[in-house]
Amino acid sequence: MDHVEVPQLLGLLAAVLGIAKLLGAAAKWIGQPAVLGELLAGVLLGTSIAGLVNPDSQILHVLAELGVVILLFEIGLETDLRKLLQVGGTSAVVAIVGVALPFALGFAVCRGLGHSNLVAIVAGATLTATSVGITGRVLADLNRLQETESRIILGAAVIDDIIGLVILAVVAGLTQGQEVTVAGVATKTAVAFGFLIGTLVVGRLIVPPLVKVLSRIDLPGTPTILAIMLAFTLAWVASVAGSAMIIGAFAAGLLLRNTPHAPEIERGVAQLGHFFVPLFFVMVGAAVDVRVLNPLDPANHRVLLVGGLLILAAVIGKFGAGYAPFWFKGNKKVIGVGMIPRGEVGLIFAQMGLATGVFDAGMFAAATVMVLVTTFIAPPLLRMLFPPVHRSGPSPEPEGIEELVTEG
Amino acid sequence: MDHVEVPQLLGLLAAVLGIAKLLGAAAKWIGQPAVLGELLAGVLLGTSIAGLVNPDSQILHVLAELGVVILLFEIGLETDLRKLLQVGGTSAVVAIVGVALPFALGFAVCRGLGHSNLVAIVAGATLTATSVGITGRVLADLNRLQETESRIILGAAVIDDIIGLVILAVVAGLTQGQEVTVAGVATKTAVAFGFLIGTLVVGRLIVPPLVKVLSRIDLPGTPTILAIMLAFTLAWVASVAGSAMIIGAFAAGLLLRNTPHAPEIERGVAQLGHFFVPLFFVMVGAAVDVRVLNPLDPANHRVLLVGGLLILAAVIGKFGAGYAPFWFKGNKKVIGVGMIPRGEVGLIFAQMGLATGVFDAGMFAAATVMVLVTTFIAPPLLRMLFPPVHRSGPSPEPEGIEELVTEG
Repeated sequence: MDHVEVPQLLGLLAAVLGIAKLLGAAAKWIGQPAVLGELLAGVLLGTSIAGLVNPDSQILHVLAELGVVILLFEIGLETDLRKLLQVGGTSAVVAIVGVALPFALGFAVCRGLGHSNLVAIVAGATLTATSVGITGRVLADLNRLQETESRIILGAAVIDDIIGLVILAVVAGLTQGQEVTVAGVATKTAVAFGFLIGTLVVGRLIVPPLVKVLSRIDLPGTPTILAIMLAFTLAWVASVAGSAMIIGAFAAGLLLRNTPHAPEIERGVAQLGHFFVPLFFVMVGAAVDVRVLNPLDPANHRVLLVGGLLILAAVIGKFGAGYAPFWFKGNKKVIGVGMIPRGEVGLIFAQMGLATGVFDAGMFAAATVMVLVTTFIAPPLLRMLFPPVHRSGPSPEPEGIEELVTEG
Repeated sequence: MDHVEVPQLLGLLAAVLGIAKLLGAAAKWIGQPAVLGELLAGVLLGTSIAGLVNPDSQILHVLAELGVVILLFEIGLETDLRKLLQVGGTSAVVAIVGVALPFALGFAVCRGLGHSNLVAIVAGATLTATSVGITGRVLADLNRLQETESRIILGAAVIDDIIGLVILAVVAGLTQGQEVTVAGVATKTAVAFGFLIGTLVVGRLIVPPLVKVLSRIDLPGTPTILAIMLAFTLAWVASVAGSAMIIGAFAAGLLLRNTPHAPEIERGVAQLGHFFVPLFFVMVGAAVDVRVLNPLDPANHRVLLVGGLLILAAVIGKFGAGYAPFWFKGNKKVIGVGMIPRGEVGLIFAQMGLATGVFDAGMFAAATVMVLVTTFIAPPLLRMLFPPVHRSGPSPEPEGIEELVTEG
């Protein structure tokens, strides 16, 4: 990172937050999830239009990452682990089909267009992972996190995030000409899933008594800071263990949900979230170059053709995955649509493709078009299929408080 | 800045927050202000001991600066501008004497020890400015922000911060061999004070109606984010106008105190403060090298002698300033002691002296010893002279709410 002038950064943050909140409110006013406005703010402020937010800025990147970690922690805090596990099988099927089908379709599209095997594999991989941040945030904006469909989507998005990590490692190896062994892939997969399971099992035993002791520390804001510490620690451990930061943060939220301090933590962390989370969505928006959408520039025609076909593969693949658990009686459309947004995960794949030289500029642009469209169509589609529920007052107390309180 | 690994940063932040809060709670438990524990955490984690917190880390520096901006905003939010102006004359006298006396004593000490005029000027300048962050935080920890003495201290600290900026600019010019003109100094002084006065006059007219309109934006957390935006914007404008960021943030707090949303803003910003503010004090502590305090190392003897004399000059100078407003009937000792901590402001001067080659390593170390001691003795001394008041429940509503509410 270049030297950061703090005053300029403060001015920039004020402007970014202002525009993100304004467009978020505007989105809400026309009945859309607020996150749509924040993404749009990012596009407007980003490289391709205003040039005010540099998506390569290290400090903005760090603040945005803090944002997505806090967001996933908040979503975990609102998610009942038991109910999540009840739909675990359904989620797993949605996740696996939702990885395999888009990959196959994307691969076929690229081969059909005459690209090499390697390009087709990286393009297919770009289509695999849902952005759990965007989907989770949309469901939260719609007040729908407690529905069975939402739980299936979240579970599937978490699982396909882990699968996506494994694919990313494999594809990164392929692009560098490394040999890929079954044993290597199996180990990586086992570690990534093992971390989540191990954390939840061990955490269920350790976290509640630990919180009980530590929250006696007599300083204002202690439970919130303890919660943030747990979220950051598990995010770090997850990353070290070969899983993803946001999986660790999500696990921290799941673990704290059943402690007596959960409502206080939720209120405290929400204030941090109001500050950090929009920065994440603005940075996702800022990383997208919308100039490739200009149909008047002949150079964009091929990009738009390839991008259009990738969008079809991306949408059909995930929408189809929603129908994979044929036994599920709920709204399969909602699940399919909820899996569509690729967001920052898709961008990470595309950037890796570009950096390693597998993607040329055109292929990279086509992948960005796919990310842009899937990210922007999912919120309004979800909103249409899954209209917002208006709740008044604070969110309901998590279950299990009474028993824990009386235990103590 | 070097490339930042976000997961490692999250782990580091969790550790830093944990140790800062733990030592803060320990400090409180033995009857001391929590900030003392946070400073100590910084010393333990910093360069000279654990080496875990690098005081030159850009990202930690940025987060710490966000912390001090939020802290001064919070202090402004708890400060009644009218009552602050009522003691304005007293504050000004304390500030001016509290700049002139330490400067003169420091200059005399260094000349007496055989140093050049330039070294003596920079050393004198290092003694001039009180750390308003540390004093304000100690007064807040003691629940004493509403006392007349506290208001005089805060007013004087803000004024001497502005004077300190002018001195910093002058001294920076001197060290680079520039000529210093009376007109130049007068302009710089007028701009630095003019910013604060202008902001408060214009802000009193603009901010309340602006807040009224904008807080209708229907998004969770809107008043808090608007407040943060105002604080960041004024911090940036202050810096551009040649004043200090923290003065802008303080002004933002003063301006929002009399809006109907003040209590909500206070609660919301407090959550951000719990996260960011300790990072500032940890970074102040981390920048201090305590190895120069080791009396067994003969190389430190001269440093300890010069440092000891500078401490005397620093303490006598500020303590004497507390007695300058001879007409004031309150506790003059409290005012004098409240002005003692030099904190990060002293370090900035010392670092400038080192960077420009005016200070050798020994003189720099002596200045750090002075900063370390004045910073660490002030909180327990203040606590002794000004025992904490225990309030229960939320802080009282700011005045003027009713009239504003009924107006709307």
